[in-house]
Amino acid sequence: MIKIGIIGYGYWGPNVTRNFNSLKTAKILMICDMNPDARKRAEMACPDIKIVSDYNEVINSPDIDAVAVVTPVFTHYEIAKEALLSGKHIFVEKPFTSKVSEAEELINLADKKNLKIMVDHTFLFTSAVRKIKECIDNDVLGRIYYYDSTRVNLGLFQHDINVIWDLAPHDLAILDYLFQEKPAALIATGAEHFGRNLEDVAYITLYFESNMIAHFNVNWLTPVKVRMTLIGGDKKMLVWNDLEVDEKIKIYDKGVEITTKEGVYSLLTKYRSGDCWIPKIDQIEALSSETEYFIDCILNNKTPINDGYAGLRVVKILEATNESLKNKSRLIELK
Amino acid sequence: MIKIGIIGYGYWGPNVTRNFNSLKTAKILMICDMNPDARKRAEMACPDIKIVSDYNEVINSPDIDAVAVVTPVFTHYEIAKEALLSGKHIFVEKPFTSKVSEAEELINLADKKNLKIMVDHTFLFTSAVRKIKECIDNDVLGRIYYYDSTRVNLGLFQHDINVIWDLAPHDLAILDYLFQEKPAALIATGAEHFGRNLEDVAYITLYFESNMIAHFNVNWLTPVKVRMTLIGGDKKMLVWNDLEVDEKIKIYDKGVEITTKEGVYSLLTKYRSGDCWIPKIDQIEALSSETEYFIDCILNNKTPINDGYAGLRVVKILEATNESLKNKSRLIELK
Amino acid sequence: MIKIGIIGYGYWGPNVTRNFNSLKTAKILMICDMNPDARKRAEMACPDIKIVSDYNEVINSPDIDAVAVVTPVFTHYEIAKEALLSGKHIFVEKPFTSKVSEAEELINLADKKNLKIMVDHTFLFTSAVRKIKECIDNDVLGRIYYYDSTRVNLGLFQHDINVIWDLAPHDLAILDYLFQEKPAALIATGAEHFGRNLEDVAYITLYFESNMIAHFNVNWLTPVKVRMTLIGGDKKMLVWNDLEVDEKIKIYDKGVEITTKEGVYSLLTKYRSGDCWIPKIDQIEALSSETEYFIDCILNNKTPINDGYAGLRVVKILEATNESLKNKSRLIELK
Amino acid sequence: MIKIGIIGYGYWGPNVTRNFNSLKTAKILMICDMNPDARKRAEMACPDIKIVSDYNEVINSPDIDAVAVVTPVFTHYEIAKEALLSGKHIFVEKPFTSKVSEAEELINLADKKNLKIMVDHTFLFTSAVRKIKECIDNDVLGRIYYYDSTRVNLGLFQHDINVIWDLAPHDLAILDYLFQEKPAALIATGAEHFGRNLEDVAYITLYFESNMIAHFNVNWLTPVKVRMTLIGGDKKMLVWNDLEVDEKIKIYDKGVEITTKEGVYSLLTKYRSGDCWIPKIDQIEALSSETEYFIDCILNNKTPINDGYAGLRVVKILEATNESLKNKSRLIELK
Repeated sequence: MIKIGIIGYGYWGPNVTRNFNSLKTAKILMICDMNPDARKRAEMACPDIKIVSDYNEVINSPDIDAVAVVTPVFTHYEIAKEALLSGKHIFVEKPFTSKVSEAEELINLADKKNLKIMVDHTFLFTSAVRKIKECIDNDVLGRIYYYDSTRVNLGLFQHDINVIWDLAPHDLAILDYLFQEKPAALIATGAEHFGRNLEDVAYITLYFESNMIAHFNVNWLTPVKVRMTLIGGDKKMLVWNDLEVDEKIKIYDKGVEITTKEGVYSLLTKYRSGDCWIPKIDQIEALSSETEYFIDCILNNKTPINDGYAGLRVVKILEATNESLKNKSRLIELK
Repeated sequence: MIKIGIIGYGYWGPNVTRNFNSLKTAKILMICDMNPDARKRAEMACPDIKIVSDYNEVINSPDIDAVAVVTPVFTHYEIAKEALLSGKHIFVEKPFTSKVSEAEELINLADKKNLKIMVDHTFLFTSAVRKIKECIDNDVLGRIYYYDSTRVNLGLFQHDINVIWDLAPHDLAILDYLFQEKPAALIATGAEHFGRNLEDVAYITLYFESNMIAHFNVNWLTPVKVRMTLIGGDKKMLVWNDLEVDEKIKIYDKGVEITTKEGVYSLLTKYRSGDCWIPKIDQIEALSSETEYFIDCILNNKTPINDGYAGLRVVKILEATNESLKNKSRLIELK
Repeated sequence: MIKIGIIGYGYWGPNVTRNFNSLKTAKILMICDMNPDARKRAEMACPDIKIVSDYNEVINSPDIDAVAVVTPVFTHYEIAKEALLSGKHIFVEKPFTSKVSEAEELINLADKKNLKIMVDHTFLFTSAVRKIKECIDNDVLGRIYYYDSTRVNLGLFQHDINVIWDLAPHDLAILDYLFQEKPAALIATGAEHFGRNLEDVAYITLYFESNMIAHFNVNWLTPVKVRMTLIGGDKKMLVWNDLEVDEKIKIYDKGVEITTKEGVYSLLTKYRSGDCWIPKIDQIEALSSETEYFIDCILNNKTPINDGYAGLRVVKILEATNESLKNKSRLIELK
Repeated sequence: MIKIGIIGYGYWGPNVTRNFNSLKTAKILMICDMNPDARKRAEMACPDIKIVSDYNEVINSPDIDAVAVVTPVFTHYEIAKEALLSGKHIFVEKPFTSKVSEAEELINLADKKNLKIMVDHTFLFTSAVRKIKECIDNDVLGRIYYYDSTRVNLGLFQHDINVIWDLAPHDLAILDYLFQEKPAALIATGAEHFGRNLEDVAYITLYFESNMIAHFNVNWLTPVKVRMTLIGGDKKMLVWNDLEVDEKIKIYDKGVEITTKEGVYSLLTKYRSGDCWIPKIDQIEALSSETEYFIDCILNNKTPINDGYAGLRVVKILEATNESLKNKSRLIELK
């Protein structure tokens, strides 16, 4: 039985709490939030759990084995560091940290103290992403041409981060999970419209050595919500529309074969267009699997797929988008 | 009655021919194509029109007033130049030319000889684009935040141009028509997957001084066809889905107001979400209006909205995307 | 403060409980279910409420003012009757009763004892239905031609009732709420495929004196879920797709004018096709408004819009569909 | 080479003409229409074909082998009869005739004179219907529970027939083609709103001995166009949305197994929900296959699948709907 402390009971904290609470292998001992309204909500929902306002109480509690850090990103590093120093495993909200150096320091610390870090890349635990992973691992799609994601809606504007840091971590974590190959360089473009110096519309292109290209369209200012990812391979092509209730993933037997000959008029192109297949996707709550997996990793000393290194790889890309945006959308090499 | 010669009877030529043919103010005297199969198709469809294989016959015919150049882009400049030198008005397929310098030369030539140039930016003559123009001119949308277009499908691969030159001219011409302000700089990213050194997936970001941002997603390798444009303004937001039969345009009364205060937790955001309005769009054939307008511009000495300068502005952007792609996606200033 | 007892904690009971629980004007004193698993769930969710297995405990409790009957339909009459006899107001799941005579008896009993009956026609409290009601009351749609509803999905098969009694009460209650005019006659058709003598596919046509026609398509055996209602009027036409998240209702400015003359070829038809309007629909939980309204009706002695008579009118139609189905789909007059 | 005469050049005639014209095995000698505007259109489109105003010229021409009757339904019988008497094969627009007795007489006449009758049930030649037929013949769907079709839109009001005779022949012909079993009885309901005594909204239920049920929803007064057919079987379920461009047919691996036991609470239901499959549907023009097939049936003395008997079976059902509607929606047995 792993004893858990929750730090942060804002928008996402109640979900993390509810899911840890329903596990037989875990027990929440304390919930912390500096906001009195949040504490009141926590008391109503969890009458049997101790509610505190100072996160040091959680971190210093000798009974607590692991801490969930569900606070704004700029606070992750400090809280996570103290938790690790205090010997706690940590479950940290995405994105892992605000800086690459912070993520690296936390990883080193956890390694030294033999503690687990799990970054809450929730989408990795959805049936949809698992099904896509299965397709890629089984070479259903073949060599990948591109990964093209659109994640746009109206709001929610964040006060401390731009739209890339808010929305893109989902897609970057998924991309990192799906493909072995890591991006070689990136470009970010974007604009902001409210005098905050934080982009509300942005686009990221990732270049890969293999010639795969990935693109992310993130926007807080669209009247309709879109959650659409296209993945084109030379064997099959996949469309993932996460807003569909039942038919999230469609796999198309479509493609093109090109034979180029000398001379201007000699392009021979053959298009293939066959059946489409909509695999059954189970309706499970991803966060439920993920929290259970966190406990399992602790109890059985496993390395999570979404460990500190996975979190770090996402932060590296996010940090590089900052650099690109600051330098007139310059290409940034990712070593 | 304006006498027309058609040069090029491939994919689009038959449509241009049919539309000029149905006008009362125009008469097609000659159709030219170097491909025997195309000539055979032309003969079947237009038994009363002279069909030739050498375009000089069209250009040198003293009876012909205007020439439609419906050939691959790399031939536009030469054919258009000879036609202008021979005193013919020209209707040229999009994109206008392969190079900025060519477009400029053609414009100068036409100016000197007092001839009309019309570039076939067909979309400007659709009811959908006219309705959007009306919304923008009447300030229905307010200050524009962004213009975001996705134009993707499977093929048709072109043998001489990349996907940007194939698909983006539509959107660039529309953008040019809708907004007075012209872009200040651009970035293009992309990849190619068939050893042809011609991108099949590409993305363009246009920056504007006013802080408006425009983005274009063009792709020849998607299993589904998408024709979707989002335009966000501070008064209203518009979605244009050109694949819808009846409900192409939706105008949303949605928006956000942000008040920033000092301190980290002080972002005050108010989201507005009201009714949506789907204006009635007439079902007309754009090319029919456009060809009629071309004749009208000749007969009444009007300057077309899609004149050589409009064509040039699109080619300028296309040329700049080449430069950006060749230089590791460098930002290109558009003076 | 009205004291509530809940009888039945199966599928819908927890929702009724949660909503009464969150009201400031009501307090749940007891929850009853004869199923031990249901009682366990109730205990977990409501640790402070007394959980019992015999509904007589609820009905005989002197502290309880009102009873929610959330049990299978064949039990409604008996429980509701005892509750009324014991002086409790009742909130009864739809459909109100299994027979017209039962509904009439309960209404009389409540009248005599000056108690309130509310039948849980939840849809009347949705923003979508309220918006449609507003359109009809304000004569936005004009004279109504037809009301056409499709409510189909896979399952859930009920053990004691056919698909009409399961799904159609929603639509019949909505129809009853929207229109003053009541149906004059009906026809029901249907089939059953599992040897249970309970239809799993069925269709109902309601005839009205005014020439309005209403039709209901209900089916437990479709692979896709559909919740679509079309309402055609001579001024405007409305489409209600309840599965849409944001754009549930569309109002079309479409219509037809017909002038008939003598002779075969003389039909003059003019079709009108104008803009479409998608009114903003609030996202509220209907059951929350409904439970609050129930308490308000008790405290302020108001007659609910969904009182026993509304429940009776729905049961009358349901009973008539039984009669029609038993008699080879004979037309049944509804006096 | 079969010589064809076309009688009727209104809405559908030009399509029939164009398709017969493009066959190598047929040649159109004459086109007839009593309307001068229609004749003018025919002359423009077919400068080489003789255009006449009196259909007797077509029927009496000794050079003509077969006649296409593309006129309003109330004229079919007379024209077809004269054509058969004159020794011509006939291709007749749907529905075949206005009365069962007329259809029977034409069939007998053709049998005696050894002539072919083909009724233009175009949908039988679409790739979508062929694919559904393949699924049913290969027992992909299993035992069929129901066939549920919705075919609704705004207009086009016909001057001589109600909405059933206008729209339902498509679906009735498809149903007849797909299933060996023929309906045992039917019910029709409907209403009319323009004082013409011709229903503009109608519903038909067909009962089958096997317990399959078929239902047709036809309506001239809806603001949106719907072309949706659901077919539920005990192995698989199929959705055919004919308005989809590429993904017209979806086959769902969904179903339900029910085990009934004694007692009220003992219904055991198991729902199956697996993958969905969208077969590739070719984009061909059905009328092109159909006209070619008509010539092939004549040349090779084959019996068309859509012969006079198929036409008669559809007319039998249509006539029965008239009877049902006239008799307060009485059940009509179809012997």
